[in-house]
Amino acid sequence: MKTEFKPYYAVIFTSTHPDNFRDENIDGYSEMSEKMEILAKQQNGFLGMDSARNAVGITVSYWDSLEAIKNWKQQSEHVQAQQKGRQDWYSWYNVKICKVEREYEFKTTSSSDF
Amino acid sequence: MKTEFKPYYAVIFTSTHPDNFRDENIDGYSEMSEKMEILAKQQNGFLGMDSARNAVGITVSYWDSLEAIKNWKQQSEHVQAQQKGRQDWYSWYNVKICKVEREYEFKTTSSSDF
Repeated sequence: MKTEFKPYYAVIFTSTHPDNFRDENIDGYSEMSEKMEILAKQQNGFLGMDSARNAVGITVSYWDSLEAIKNWKQQSEHVQAQQKGRQDWYSWYNVKICKVEREYEFKTTSSSDF
Repeated sequence: MKTEFKPYYAVIFTSTHPDNFRDENIDGYSEMSEKMEILAKQQNGFLGMDSARNAVGITVSYWDSLEAIKNWKQQSEHVQAQQKGRQDWYSWYNVKICKVEREYEFKTTSSSDF
């Protein structure tokens, strides 16, 4: 019997830092990133998060509803972080709200579902 | 007048390398990654791609239809890369097929839409 898949939501946040970021604007960025990750995890409806950064940074967070995403966007400390981000930390960013429709996974230690 | 948003699709590929990856299994991985990126861009329905890797790797590719995603998954050289990936390059990966429902963007040099 196939388990029914319950759709959920992903927020894909893609960003670049300004050219002078390493010299001038890094102050407070790492602390704010960590703080936002902790805060996000405390929100209702938060399901998980992955982040990586090279030339571009990609953070994908997962949520159980659009309502949860909206609440997180409007969370007061997060609003301040967004303002600071636009002011100092990012030269560009893009946010995509997505509905996860299906997924599959591979693990070395288990039998593959392929 | 607000431009109508046309939904499209994102494939979120999240992965980890095995512990011994740096020592033993890296051979051919970078070349294959580059080759797959070039190939993906040649597929019908390909819209874009972003990648970054630290502890986890995240690659998000964008497509104009589920059909395009299916065709890419089944592309013969890509099928070989997937097999090699499961055999040597990844200890774990997860693939999520998502419908992008809306998005917004910020750029330093333009007026923000916030």
